[in-house]
Amino acid sequence: MEPPVSTPPATRPRLRDLGITIGTMPPGPLNAITDVPGVRIGHTTLTGEHPDVNTGVTAIHPHEGSAFHAMCPAAIVVLNGAGEMTGRSQVDEYGVLESPILITNTLSVGVAHQAVVDWIYASEPELGRGHFAIPVVAETFDGFLNDTAGQHVTTDHVVAAIEGASGGPVEEGNVGGGTGMLTAQFKAGIGTSSRVVTLPSIPSIYTVGVLVQSNFGLREDLLIDGVPVGREIPDLPLERGAGQKDGSIIIVVATDAPLSDRQLRRLANRAMLGLARAGGLGRHSSGDIIIAFSNAPENRTQRLVHRFAPTEDEILLQRVQINDAAIDPFFQATVEATSEAIANALVAAKTMTGRDGHVAHALPHDRLVAVMRRYGRLAEGAAPGQD
Amino acid sequence: MEPPVSTPPATRPRLRDLGITIGTMPPGPLNAITDVPGVRIGHTTLTGEHPDVNTGVTAIHPHEGSAFHAMCPAAIVVLNGAGEMTGRSQVDEYGVLESPILITNTLSVGVAHQAVVDWIYASEPELGRGHFAIPVVAETFDGFLNDTAGQHVTTDHVVAAIEGASGGPVEEGNVGGGTGMLTAQFKAGIGTSSRVVTLPSIPSIYTVGVLVQSNFGLREDLLIDGVPVGREIPDLPLERGAGQKDGSIIIVVATDAPLSDRQLRRLANRAMLGLARAGGLGRHSSGDIIIAFSNAPENRTQRLVHRFAPTEDEILLQRVQINDAAIDPFFQATVEATSEAIANALVAAKTMTGRDGHVAHALPHDRLVAVMRRYGRLAEGAAPGQD
Amino acid sequence: MEPPVSTPPATRPRLRDLGITIGTMPPGPLNAITDVPGVRIGHTTLTGEHPDVNTGVTAIHPHEGSAFHAMCPAAIVVLNGAGEMTGRSQVDEYGVLESPILITNTLSVGVAHQAVVDWIYASEPELGRGHFAIPVVAETFDGFLNDTAGQHVTTDHVVAAIEGASGGPVEEGNVGGGTGMLTAQFKAGIGTSSRVVTLPSIPSIYTVGVLVQSNFGLREDLLIDGVPVGREIPDLPLERGAGQKDGSIIIVVATDAPLSDRQLRRLANRAMLGLARAGGLGRHSSGDIIIAFSNAPENRTQRLVHRFAPTEDEILLQRVQINDAAIDPFFQATVEATSEAIANALVAAKTMTGRDGHVAHALPHDRLVAVMRRYGRLAEGAAPGQD
Amino acid sequence: MEPPVSTPPATRPRLRDLGITIGTMPPGPLNAITDVPGVRIGHTTLTGEHPDVNTGVTAIHPHEGSAFHAMCPAAIVVLNGAGEMTGRSQVDEYGVLESPILITNTLSVGVAHQAVVDWIYASEPELGRGHFAIPVVAETFDGFLNDTAGQHVTTDHVVAAIEGASGGPVEEGNVGGGTGMLTAQFKAGIGTSSRVVTLPSIPSIYTVGVLVQSNFGLREDLLIDGVPVGREIPDLPLERGAGQKDGSIIIVVATDAPLSDRQLRRLANRAMLGLARAGGLGRHSSGDIIIAFSNAPENRTQRLVHRFAPTEDEILLQRVQINDAAIDPFFQATVEATSEAIANALVAAKTMTGRDGHVAHALPHDRLVAVMRRYGRLAEGAAPGQD
Repeated sequence: MEPPVSTPPATRPRLRDLGITIGTMPPGPLNAITDVPGVRIGHTTLTGEHPDVNTGVTAIHPHEGSAFHAMCPAAIVVLNGAGEMTGRSQVDEYGVLESPILITNTLSVGVAHQAVVDWIYASEPELGRGHFAIPVVAETFDGFLNDTAGQHVTTDHVVAAIEGASGGPVEEGNVGGGTGMLTAQFKAGIGTSSRVVTLPSIPSIYTVGVLVQSNFGLREDLLIDGVPVGREIPDLPLERGAGQKDGSIIIVVATDAPLSDRQLRRLANRAMLGLARAGGLGRHSSGDIIIAFSNAPENRTQRLVHRFAPTEDEILLQRVQINDAAIDPFFQATVEATSEAIANALVAAKTMTGRDGHVAHALPHDRLVAVMRRYGRLAEGAAPGQD
Repeated sequence: MEPPVSTPPATRPRLRDLGITIGTMPPGPLNAITDVPGVRIGHTTLTGEHPDVNTGVTAIHPHEGSAFHAMCPAAIVVLNGAGEMTGRSQVDEYGVLESPILITNTLSVGVAHQAVVDWIYASEPELGRGHFAIPVVAETFDGFLNDTAGQHVTTDHVVAAIEGASGGPVEEGNVGGGTGMLTAQFKAGIGTSSRVVTLPSIPSIYTVGVLVQSNFGLREDLLIDGVPVGREIPDLPLERGAGQKDGSIIIVVATDAPLSDRQLRRLANRAMLGLARAGGLGRHSSGDIIIAFSNAPENRTQRLVHRFAPTEDEILLQRVQINDAAIDPFFQATVEATSEAIANALVAAKTMTGRDGHVAHALPHDRLVAVMRRYGRLAEGAAPGQD
Repeated sequence: MEPPVSTPPATRPRLRDLGITIGTMPPGPLNAITDVPGVRIGHTTLTGEHPDVNTGVTAIHPHEGSAFHAMCPAAIVVLNGAGEMTGRSQVDEYGVLESPILITNTLSVGVAHQAVVDWIYASEPELGRGHFAIPVVAETFDGFLNDTAGQHVTTDHVVAAIEGASGGPVEEGNVGGGTGMLTAQFKAGIGTSSRVVTLPSIPSIYTVGVLVQSNFGLREDLLIDGVPVGREIPDLPLERGAGQKDGSIIIVVATDAPLSDRQLRRLANRAMLGLARAGGLGRHSSGDIIIAFSNAPENRTQRLVHRFAPTEDEILLQRVQINDAAIDPFFQATVEATSEAIANALVAAKTMTGRDGHVAHALPHDRLVAVMRRYGRLAEGAAPGQD
Repeated sequence: MEPPVSTPPATRPRLRDLGITIGTMPPGPLNAITDVPGVRIGHTTLTGEHPDVNTGVTAIHPHEGSAFHAMCPAAIVVLNGAGEMTGRSQVDEYGVLESPILITNTLSVGVAHQAVVDWIYASEPELGRGHFAIPVVAETFDGFLNDTAGQHVTTDHVVAAIEGASGGPVEEGNVGGGTGMLTAQFKAGIGTSSRVVTLPSIPSIYTVGVLVQSNFGLREDLLIDGVPVGREIPDLPLERGAGQKDGSIIIVVATDAPLSDRQLRRLANRAMLGLARAGGLGRHSSGDIIIAFSNAPENRTQRLVHRFAPTEDEILLQRVQINDAAIDPFFQATVEATSEAIANALVAAKTMTGRDGHVAHALPHDRLVAVMRRYGRLAEGAAPGQD
């Protein structure tokens, strides 16, 4: 299979537009988490109104319907736990995800939690009568560019991200929860990528998609496809802010392959490896947390109307699962898509002047290309797109 | 050492007032988590105003100062994860607690999270400049007696619990986060107990204190000191509500003994055993989550002013820790105090008529005493206090 | 359903023969792990030849065929890790068991490991060509009664236990790996019990069976059905040995219900609760480790002949799984069967004089009955079997 | 600090001898795990006698004395659990290592376990009287080059590795447990590397040393310093063997810095990241297991003579620990040293013809150098050592 042509959102180039390719597996048509059928992404972006407010929220619906009513197998893994992803204990226990995933800034976890719970209740009137929802809300810290303590994200912003979500191309860079985020002391934010897995001897193909809210690392850490880009571009530091050391990354791995919660835990562990290849060290104060889910329709668990009285038809569940002996391509897909999603978050981001005049520079595309060429990753004559 | 006399809050009797004793170790003077010096408890209780509103929030400060500035070793353990305790990933990673612990109803996790973060920020003006807090907020579900979906807990209520906290006797039963909670389909809520550990050959004594927000189990599950109290008192069911099956329990274990995060994880595991002895099965939809902390002053970690540049004095930390070979009495103390705290939550609770006229009955003291006597736990002539 | 009559191995009474019943669920016909169809147990017992040699090995085959060729879903949980169960990392990762389970003394783990690997290889000639086995071998310490350091268990003994295994009644007490084991400073060893789970609205019934090698606890810890039997029978101490404090327990939970590895982890956690109700504190130097497996035929994973090249038919696996919403009866079954298996290990054991003249007394049946009666657990006129 | 000159064992070059450097931190004088004072390595190598026998065992003593008597803080982490490291449950529970670490082939775990237990007993006559040892024995599979099923490793071989261990330069490649091991379908085996950590503002420097038994990955996976060496050298396949897909890696991380078990778990997690950067995907059938220990003398726990009766002096332990806020350099050191240890295992290994005439080729040094130069990692004129 040939890698399909990348179709990026209009104005922001992506890593592949610069002629740089990570790994050997083909991406999906959008090279985005939304290549996994049914996955929907919504962003609310707060920027441009007041210089101190540069933040937002991103919503990921695991499939085309209600995550609360049709729960997906899921698993959460923590590389370095200096952060928050609520709902972890329940995902561990039940092996399913029962809400859209929300990602925002560190101090807006509370409001996002409240908003998603209210939103589920609003559409599920019977909930107060014995049901409740334990949502997944995650965060990274945007205090360098954003007045985080001002808590500018409201419940309306959260609901807008949830309700505005759609399939199709995904905006990257300074959008949604990623609006004020940094990576390797460059401006970054949201990034996404995907890989197509073709298993021998069965007709189906499957997709692994990754979305990151990338906010980790020191300059010197940054690797793109193994090239020490951060050491090669040591200038363009953060300006006017003292001591912004490092942040965090939230990684969402989606697939339509029928994988169990245990197998999704294996995939989530491989997202760590993809992060490592992008320079992640899991630094002390970084919250590097991964959630993986499978939205294969045959493995969704329907919420019971009579919660504690399953009927005969509801007691024995039929499940399908990829034989673990065939799982390696999913591992490789996860590693590749994670590394590329991080690179896309950097490439798509724009230089931002934020709170108190702090400045975070975009990774300059021309210099990135020059470094990659010097390290043998681009043909000498390659003339990729410009910033 | 003789068990000291229990000094309960004025009007509500406790298990020992009924002549029933769990285990063999002596409790502290208050038989409460506040026997651990410095631990402070605050409750905001919402009940009596509107029949549908029966909920609240409980705050636990691990020591006499700021948990944010002087962080305590801590560990979180999950028996059954159908619930939420935020901050778990960071507690796992850092091995410390950096906020007061908040316990409320399931749907107020968001508002409590937001409130505690704001409260920390209000008292820590430098926070927006690179620091952030990942608080511990936990919950159980009070939907049988409370209009949980109405989200009646406000940030002011949360701050009131945090700021009103104190040492001394701890209110139990229908108070704070426990206001609308049930156990074994009896009315329950907050309960507490403690044990004193005297190690051979060292002069110090240490205390293990436990506080629970108890909301778990079916009637048939209930055990008190191994006696099947629930099977013996099968009447007095929940009234007018359909299908309230079971809930959850949050257990907070505190000690002043110098125990490391690993050792506190061992204690938290023993709280599970104490729960098992009170009838806990960790039923499917129960969120049974335990946090244990040590507030030994010598082991607190000071927050660094210059977060990423520890000075010479700050790099090497001196720690003290109990030899694991001497840890067994702490295990036994945790088991005993957990079982008794659950019983105290039941004994202190009052019958409540709540949302939609639902009724949860208190465990009748006279019948409890009769059952315990029949099972050989009380002398024939014992005449304990009345309800 | 009425509890079926217990059919114990000829000469040794069991807890129910004394009129004592734990819990409310019915046991299977044998009240043994072998009530789970296909489970086979084998013991090699080394005792009676030389006074210092009192040890052995017990083998558990998860089903009627080769565990290596048809792998069962499984999970391992550790309450207190001062012990060994090999194979844990692979069981965690793959979610399956690929060998019979061997239980022996602490210092014979090596020889048992070698023996089971050799035995698998002997029957699987292709193994040296790319396959290998990671077996599950567990232990508790019998140094009070046995010359453990002498390593008297040989590979032949291990193979005899593996090959001699069968269904049907299970010998308990001083047999197999349990030959030299103690519980609460009484003689104990192997014990087993089972519970039948009848789900509403489906025709199938399922069985949960438990087998323990019980070697834990101080006298004062011992509980039987919540009654403090250890405190009530404080005499009959261990004789002539210094400082035998406590040991360990290995718990094997088997079921024929179609449960996934995640669900089996949930069951294994409940075995902890059953241990707690038998007095287990998970004392510091105790290795309290649980393995749970499901041998439901529809969920076994066949070993691939061409290990890294699954054919089309082998890639997508069909699985069946009990809805988690219906799992509570399995939890209760596990708790009850674990507590009763421990009691059976004590009741079946005989007083033993072992290494260096050390003596461990059997729990006297008449006194146990008297204590249980005093604590309201037996009708006054009950006249159960004698010791 | 300038990186000290590497002093390799006589005849085998190392990565740095080829002019290739990984990372930016300086290695210790030997660029080996033995740069951590007290760490001792012993190899028993079985090769050259019979063409089918190419295996061995490697012993790592954590310090200059008895690991059994002076226990070190330690932690074990599993990236992919298709392998064995015994002792994991106890290391998790106690947070210490109590034996030398043994690494051998998959089927010799039993004999190595038995041998190390016997060896500890032989030197500790009181052990049979209440003490026992739970050793750490790990493995990778050498079935392509070795008649693994023949179990050619004997207890004498194991004891020879334990007793022959010493500090100083460490043999790499086809030695010890690594004798028959492969990486990326090249010949590999044992490799080691180290990094020196200089903390600001304290006089001490610390060392992180890594030793690997490297046996993982497909050709296409191999990365050296981010360069896709495996894809660039696709020829030189394994010869005459069918279907050797991938293997495993055991990683031992040692440090003299005073780090707690929790902190060592953090380091062990970073060894995963170093593995990822060397191309590790944690493939399905790979056992990728890491143990990290600190041998800081001030944090060793002395075994108690009277195991269950600690004296006054033994109850309160004084500990020193690096502030987590200063831990990042240890993370980076672990990542760098792990990646370089893997590369050293490849560079040091020699082409081997083993069982059934199977051939595994060494990674050709000249071609490696050419690839690295093409990818910008070596100056054009660099003229490193030859194979």
